Amino acid sequence: MKAIKDSVHDHIPVCDLAADLLDTPELQRLRHIKQLSTVRLVYPSANHTRFEHSLGVYYLAREACSLLGVEGDRAKAVRAAALLHDVGHGPYGHQTEGVIERRLGRHHDEVGDLLASGELGAVLESHGLDPGEVADLVAGEGRLGQLVAGELDVDRMDYLVRDAHHTGVPYGTIDHSRLLAALQFRDDDLVLSAGNVQTAEGTLVARALMNATVYRHHVSRIAGAMLERASERLLDSTDLRPEAFARMTDDRLLGALRDCPATADAARRLEQRDLYKRAVWAKLDAVPEAVVAADRDEVRAFEREIAETADAAGETDVSPEDVLVDTPGEPGMPESSTRVVVDGEVRRLADESPLVEGLRAAGRAQWRLGVYAPEEKIPEVGAAAERVLGVET
Amino acid sequence: MKAIKDSVHDHIPVCDLAADLLDTPELQRLRHIKQLSTVRLVYPSANHTRFEHSLGVYYLAREACSLLGVEGDRAKAVRAAALLHDVGHGPYGHQTEGVIERRLGRHHDEVGDLLASGELGAVLESHGLDPGEVADLVAGEGRLGQLVAGELDVDRMDYLVRDAHHTGVPYGTIDHSRLLAALQFRDDDLVLSAGNVQTAEGTLVARALMNATVYRHHVSRIAGAMLERASERLLDSTDLRPEAFARMTDDRLLGALRDCPATADAARRLEQRDLYKRAVWAKLDAVPEAVVAADRDEVRAFEREIAETADAAGETDVSPEDVLVDTPGEPGMPESSTRVVVDGEVRRLADESPLVEGLRAAGRAQWRLGVYAPEEKIPEVGAAAERVLGVET
Amino acid sequence: MKAIKDSVHDHIPVCDLAADLLDTPELQRLRHIKQLSTVRLVYPSANHTRFEHSLGVYYLAREACSLLGVEGDRAKAVRAAALLHDVGHGPYGHQTEGVIERRLGRHHDEVGDLLASGELGAVLESHGLDPGEVADLVAGEGRLGQLVAGELDVDRMDYLVRDAHHTGVPYGTIDHSRLLAALQFRDDDLVLSAGNVQTAEGTLVARALMNATVYRHHVSRIAGAMLERASERLLDSTDLRPEAFARMTDDRLLGALRDCPATADAARRLEQRDLYKRAVWAKLDAVPEAVVAADRDEVRAFEREIAETADAAGETDVSPEDVLVDTPGEPGMPESSTRVVVDGEVRRLADESPLVEGLRAAGRAQWRLGVYAPEEKIPEVGAAAERVLGVET
Amino acid sequence: MKAIKDSVHDHIPVCDLAADLLDTPELQRLRHIKQLSTVRLVYPSANHTRFEHSLGVYYLAREACSLLGVEGDRAKAVRAAALLHDVGHGPYGHQTEGVIERRLGRHHDEVGDLLASGELGAVLESHGLDPGEVADLVAGEGRLGQLVAGELDVDRMDYLVRDAHHTGVPYGTIDHSRLLAALQFRDDDLVLSAGNVQTAEGTLVARALMNATVYRHHVSRIAGAMLERASERLLDSTDLRPEAFARMTDDRLLGALRDCPATADAARRLEQRDLYKRAVWAKLDAVPEAVVAADRDEVRAFEREIAETADAAGETDVSPEDVLVDTPGEPGMPESSTRVVVDGEVRRLADESPLVEGLRAAGRAQWRLGVYAPEEKIPEVGAAAERVLGVET
Repeated sequence: MKAIKDSVHDHIPVCDLAADLLDTPELQRLRHIKQLSTVRLVYPSANHTRFEHSLGVYYLAREACSLLGVEGDRAKAVRAAALLHDVGHGPYGHQTEGVIERRLGRHHDEVGDLLASGELGAVLESHGLDPGEVADLVAGEGRLGQLVAGELDVDRMDYLVRDAHHTGVPYGTIDHSRLLAALQFRDDDLVLSAGNVQTAEGTLVARALMNATVYRHHVSRIAGAMLERASERLLDSTDLRPEAFARMTDDRLLGALRDCPATADAARRLEQRDLYKRAVWAKLDAVPEAVVAADRDEVRAFEREIAETADAAGETDVSPEDVLVDTPGEPGMPESSTRVVVDGEVRRLADESPLVEGLRAAGRAQWRLGVYAPEEKIPEVGAAAERVLGVET
Repeated sequence: MKAIKDSVHDHIPVCDLAADLLDTPELQRLRHIKQLSTVRLVYPSANHTRFEHSLGVYYLAREACSLLGVEGDRAKAVRAAALLHDVGHGPYGHQTEGVIERRLGRHHDEVGDLLASGELGAVLESHGLDPGEVADLVAGEGRLGQLVAGELDVDRMDYLVRDAHHTGVPYGTIDHSRLLAALQFRDDDLVLSAGNVQTAEGTLVARALMNATVYRHHVSRIAGAMLERASERLLDSTDLRPEAFARMTDDRLLGALRDCPATADAARRLEQRDLYKRAVWAKLDAVPEAVVAADRDEVRAFEREIAETADAAGETDVSPEDVLVDTPGEPGMPESSTRVVVDGEVRRLADESPLVEGLRAAGRAQWRLGVYAPEEKIPEVGAAAERVLGVET
Repeated sequence: MKAIKDSVHDHIPVCDLAADLLDTPELQRLRHIKQLSTVRLVYPSANHTRFEHSLGVYYLAREACSLLGVEGDRAKAVRAAALLHDVGHGPYGHQTEGVIERRLGRHHDEVGDLLASGELGAVLESHGLDPGEVADLVAGEGRLGQLVAGELDVDRMDYLVRDAHHTGVPYGTIDHSRLLAALQFRDDDLVLSAGNVQTAEGTLVARALMNATVYRHHVSRIAGAMLERASERLLDSTDLRPEAFARMTDDRLLGALRDCPATADAARRLEQRDLYKRAVWAKLDAVPEAVVAADRDEVRAFEREIAETADAAGETDVSPEDVLVDTPGEPGMPESSTRVVVDGEVRRLADESPLVEGLRAAGRAQWRLGVYAPEEKIPEVGAAAERVLGVET
Repeated sequence: MKAIKDSVHDHIPVCDLAADLLDTPELQRLRHIKQLSTVRLVYPSANHTRFEHSLGVYYLAREACSLLGVEGDRAKAVRAAALLHDVGHGPYGHQTEGVIERRLGRHHDEVGDLLASGELGAVLESHGLDPGEVADLVAGEGRLGQLVAGELDVDRMDYLVRDAHHTGVPYGTIDHSRLLAALQFRDDDLVLSAGNVQTAEGTLVARALMNATVYRHHVSRIAGAMLERASERLLDSTDLRPEAFARMTDDRLLGALRDCPATADAARRLEQRDLYKRAVWAKLDAVPEAVVAADRDEVRAFEREIAETADAAGETDVSPEDVLVDTPGEPGMPESSTRVVVDGEVRRLADESPLVEGLRAAGRAQWRLGVYAPEEKIPEVGAAAERVLGVET
C-alpha cells in the first residue's frame, strides 16, 4: 500500500480510495489553505495546511474503524468522509466562515453539492460510494457520523496534537491513542469506555488552554477581523461572486485583495504583518450586555459611530475603515457533552466532572471585547469607542 | 565547560562546583533511587532516577538565575541547592517518607546535617559556600529559596516534563521555557509577569492530570502501601537503624526486605509485580468522616479489626498482614497560590482563575479509599472492610 | 525581552535589533517563501518558511556567540547577518536560483545592495551597524562569517533539524547542541574541539541521508524543473523585470504564472500536483559524459531534439514544452571540509574519516538523470530521449 | 484489549498470550535488567530496562506480522518469541555474556530449556504453542525467525529508537515505520522492497553512530570491564553457581559483589561511579597483531605481566587486580547483509551501497585498545603496559 510521511502520525498508509481522492483538485486545494490561518502571525511555525490535517483525520478514522470493528463499505465511507471533511472550507478557513454563511447561507460542513459533482463525485462513485451518504457523515449525521463530527471526533484528536506540534505550544498534546482505544458504541452513541473520565478531561483542558494561548490570541484575532472586513469589501466592490470567493485558496484571496484598490492596503498590512492595534480590550463585566449581544449590523453601526466621534474629536482623520469592533462569542466546549461510561452507566462529562464548570468560568474570564485601529489613531479611536460602547474603564 | 547529555533538556553544561558535587557518594546515590518509585509497575518506561532529575533542576536553576540577573556566589548557592535538593530522600522517595518522618522526625528537605558533613560539606566549603545557607535554600527559605522549593520552583518544572517524557503520558508537558522567562521578583516575592495567567493555569492543570493518571494510579498506590508496611515490619523485626534505613537505595532496601523472613514475601511480590488487589475502592461521600480523618494508629486498628472479622467469617485464614487500608490526603495544589501580575498588581492564581476551584473539586471527585488484600482473600476482606469501616455500597 | 515561540527551538528571545529587523517588509516577505519549496508535494507537512528558519538561525547564532565569547557590536552584527542570511532568496528559494543568476548575475547571498537600502539599511544603521559589514558576514567572509556561511555554520544546524521536524523524516536530527558547544576558533579558523570527529560525521551523514530521501526526491525534482522552465517562459513572454521577479514571494510567482497564457498550464499542474512523470531515470554510468556535463543551452538543444524525434515517431504531438531534461550536479559535501581538532592538531574531516569517501560514492550511486514529460507522452518521449541522449538501457 | 503505555511506541495493545507471559517471574525479572547496563554512567537518563524493550519488540513484531499477512498460530508464536527474546540474558545484559558463555557454554539466545520449563512453559502450552518452536524463533531460525533475530529484525528497530530516546543522543532515530512497511518475503528471505536502499543505509548509519557515541563510549567500556572481572572473581571466590549467577538481576549481582570481600571495592566503585581510568588508549595500527588477537587467557597473562612490571618499577604497589586490558572485537555490521530489492532483484546492501565499506573503515578508525587502572596508578601502569604490549606511542 502507498504511504505518506506525516510529521505527526509518521507513516500514513493510503488505500486506493484515498489515493484517488487525493488526486482531485478539491483535495489538492487544501494544500493552499492553512490550518490556523492568521495564527501564524503569532506562531511563525504554524504553517501547516488543511491538506495534511485531512490526511491525519483520515488516518485516525481508519484506526478508529479498525478498533471498533467497522469494516467494508461502511468503513470506506467513514474514511472518505474523514479525508473530505474540510473540502467545504473557504480561504483562510474559519476566518471567512461568517462572510460565506451570510452570502451563501451555507456552512462549511454542508458539502452535498461539492461531493456529488466533479471529480470528487466521480471518484466516490467509482469506488461504490454514495456521495450523499458521505456528505451526511461529514455533517456528523448518523451513528458513524459521530466519528467524523461530534464531541469525540477524530477531527479534534488530530488538530489539537497537530497545532501543538506546529506552534510549539505544548498544551494540545492529548493522549489520542488512548482516546481511540477507549471509543465504543453504546446503543447508537459513541462513548468512552469505563475508566476514562480523566482521558476526557484531558481533551477538554487541552482545548481550553489552546483556545486561550493560540486560537484566540489577540494578534490572530486582529488579523482575522481585518481579513473578514477586507473580504466583505472585496465582495462589495468587485464582481467576484460569493461562490467563487468560497472556492479560493489563501493566496488567491490575498492576490485578489492586493488587486482591488479598496482592499490593497489591508492586503499589504496582512502580508507584512503591519496590523491594527488594540484601542480597547475589555473584560466581559466591563461591557454592556447590548454590545456583547450585538449582531453584525449593530456592530457595523457601532463602528461608524465610533469613527465619526473620533473624527470629530481630534486632528486625526478617522474613517469607518479605521475601526474594527470584535465581539467574540463565548468559547464553545463541545467536549463537555462527551459521554463516558462510569459505574456501568453512560454519563455526560459535564455531569461527572467539576472541571467543566471551572473551564467554562475560566473561558468567561478570558473573554475580551476588542476594538482595533491603525496604531497612530489609537488614542482617538480608544476614547471614542469607550464612550460610544459604554465600556467601563 | 563539561556537559552532560539529558533526554529532556538535551545538553546540560556543568560548572566546576556541580562537577565536584556530582562526584560525591551522596549524589551518586541518587542514581539508585527512582524518581517515580512504584509508578513503573504501571508505566514500564518510568525508570528515570532522582539523579537525572537533579541535573535537570540544576539546569533550570541556572537558566532562571541568568534570566533573573542573579549572579556570583548567590547564583552558585542556588545551583548547589538545586542539584542537592533531593539528597535527603530515602529509598523509593516519597513512599518511605512517612516511615522516616515517624522514626526520625525529619522531613526529606531538612538536609542541614547532611550538607554540613562528609564529602558534600567539604566540596561546598572548597567552593566558598556555607552548607547551612545551601540547606536553607533547599528548604525554600529566603528570597532565592522560592526558586528551589516554592509554588514556582524549578523542581516542579523539571519533574512534570520529565515524568511525561518517561511515562509516555502527555499531560505533564508544561511550557517550562515560558515559565522561566516569565519569572520576576516583586519586592521579595517570586511571581509571574503580566500576561501569564494561562501559563500558570497550564502548570496547575498539568499537575492535576498527572496526579489522576500517573502519581495516584491505583496500582502504584497498592505497591506503595505494601512497601511502606514492609518497611515498618523490617525496622520492627531487625536491628536496622532508621538512620541507615533512610540512607539506603531502592535496591538495597529491596535486598534487605528479601533477606528478612517477615518481609520476604512482600519483596517477592514487589519484584515480580504480584501485588495485592483492591477489596474496597470507595468515593469520598461513601466513607465515614472518621475513617477519612483516621491517623496511622487508627488505620492499623481498622486493619486488625478487618482481619479478625474476615478471619472469623469464612474458611480462609486472614491475618493482619493481609489487609492494607489506604486513606490518601486530598491532593495538594501548591500551584494555586502562584502569584501572577494582573493589571499591574500581584494576585494569587486562586483568586484570579476559576479553574483552581474546578480542579480542587475534580481532585475530590477522584479521591478513593482503598483496602487491599491478596487476590484470593478479596471477597472476605472486602465484606469485612465494608462492615468495619462503614463504607456505603 | 520579547520572545517568539518556535516549534524547533521552543522559546526564542528576540533582542531589540532583531525585533526591528523582523518588522521590515524584507523579512516579513520570508513568511511567504517556503523553506523546502516543492518538497512539500512529497512530504505534505513540509510547509515551513524561510521566516521561521531565519529566526532559528538567529537563535543559534546568538548561542554560538555567547559560547564563543563574541560580544558587543561584533555579536550584534553576527545576529543581524544570521537573521538576514536568506533575504536575498527569490521565490521558491533554490528552485529559481539558476534563473536569477542567469538574468541578474547575482547569487542569493550577495545582499549588499538590499541591506544598504530601504528599511533594512535604516534599521541596521539606527543600531550602529554597517550594512556592508553585515552583508560580508552573510557572504561568509571574515572570521565570524564562518558562523553564518561555512561548513560549520548555524544555517545548516537549523535547517537539518527543522526539515526533519517538518517532513517527519528522522535523518536530519543532528546533535546541534553538541555542535554548538564544540565550536572554537583556532587562529582564525572555526573548528570543532577534540573528541568531535563523530559529531562531525553525524552532521555529514544527516545531510547525505536528507539529500537522498528529501531534498533530491524525484517528485520534488520534477516540480522544481517545471517551475524553473515556467519561470523562464514567464520572463520571456511578459514584461516582468528580473529584478521584480527576484523579489516575488511563492504565491505571487504562482499567481503570475497563472495569469500568463504561456505558463497557465504549468501553474495549474503545480497547484494541483498534476506533475510530469519520468520518461527516463538513468544512473551515472548509463549516461554519456557529454550529457552529464551539458550546459544549459546544450540541455535546451537536447530537449528540442527529443521533442522533434518523439513528435516525428508517433501519433502523439510532442512539443518542446513537453520535454524536460534534468541533469543534477553531484551532491556537494561542504561538511567534508569541516576542521576538527584531533590529537591536538586541526585536521580536515575528509582526511580523518573514511566515511567521507563512502558518502561521496553513495552520492554518485544515487545520481540520476531525469527526463520528464506529461504522463500520456511518456512512451514516445522516453524512447526518443534514450536515442538522442545515448542513454544505455 | 489491555494496553500498556510506552514512552516510545505510545499505546501498546497486549493480547491475552502476552498478558499471561508478562505475569511470569521470567519476564518480570527483565524489569530489573537495564537495557544499556553501564552506559547510564555516561548518559544518566539511560535507565530503561529490557522489560520495556521487550514490550516494544512485541509491538513491532505484531505490526510486522499484520503487514506481512502472517496470522493465527504462526503470528502468536512470533509475538511470543519477540516478547521473550531477551529472557536468556544474564545480569547487566551483554556485560556478563562472556562470563556466562565460558562457564555454561550457552549464549543468551539459547532459551530452549528456559521456555520449556516453569511458568513460561505452562503459559506457552496453555495457549497452544510449542516452547521448542518459540525457542527456535528466538534463535532466529526458520523463515519467521528472521523477524525476531536477523539483519532486519524488530529487536534492532526497537533498541535503536529507544536508546536514542533515553540517552538523548539523536543518532538512533531510524525510520522504523518505513522499515516495517518495506518488509517483504522473497521466497524464504526477508527483504526490503524496492526503493529502500536509503532506508537500509539509514539503519546502518544509525547503528554505526550509536556504536561510536553510546555503545562503545570509553566510560561504559571501563565500567563493563570492571564488572566482568568482578563477576569472574565472585564466581571464583564464592560458591555461587554459574546457573544462579546467570539468572540474577542487576541489583542482585551488585548486592552479591558488595557482600563478597574480593569484589566489595569494585561494587563500591561501580555504585559510586569511582571508576578506573585509561592508562593506555591506542589505535589499531599502534597495537601489535598478537595483542589485538589475544584470547582471554593471553589477556590475563598480559595483565599479570603489566602489573609485575609496574610494581617492580615504582614506589606504588600494583597488583593484577589493578590492571584491566580491554581489546574489543571489530564492531559488527549485521545490517550490511540486509537484502534489498533493486531493479527487481534481491541484492545485499554491502554490494549495493558504497557506504558499507566507508562505515566499516570508520569503525576500524574508531577502534581502541584500552588499559585501565586506578587513577593514582595510571603513570606506572601506562608505562608498563606500553612496554609489555609493545604499543607504539
